[in-house]
Amino acid sequence: MACAELLRYPAAILTTAAFVPQAWQSWRTRDLSGISLPMYLLFTLGVACWLAYGLAIGSLPVIVANGITLCLASVVLWLKLSAPR
Amino acid sequence: MACAELLRYPAAILTTAAFVPQAWQSWRTRDLSGISLPMYLLFTLGVACWLAYGLAIGSLPVIVANGITLCLASVVLWLKLSAPR
Repeated sequence: MACAELLRYPAAILTTAAFVPQAWQSWRTRDLSGISLPMYLLFTLGVACWLAYGLAIGSLPVIVANGITLCLASVVLWLKLSAPR
Repeated sequence: MACAELLRYPAAILTTAAFVPQAWQSWRTRDLSGISLPMYLLFTLGVACWLAYGLAIGSLPVIVANGITLCLASVVLWLKLSAPR
């Protein structure tokens, strides 16, 4: 594997793991006021496309990273949708 | 280009565009209370790794998508860091 290809691993781990503290904070505090609903609508849909891409090409790392991110972003989206306006 | 490869375009456009409404809302309202600082620290670093990967393999779509996302996520991170605790 080329050296450049190795960059994908910290990149995917960081951009996936990033949503753990956000989902946890949103769940714990139920403070969604600063969270953009359009962001999570677009982002969740985009990650679903990345997951579909991973499934289509049969790439386990793409499937796992985007599957986890989809779950975490969906939690934030669901909390935002159910938060008082 | 295989049909599956085409999925990358809506995926990349959606996950990049998602940060426009978040950066705009955070900038306009300065309400960062629901935003997780660890999320934006990890995410910004991860997107920087994706940008480095794009530069290393010379892929313009990867460079453009992650360059834009890095700028937008950095705005949210900077606003969060400078927000009153």
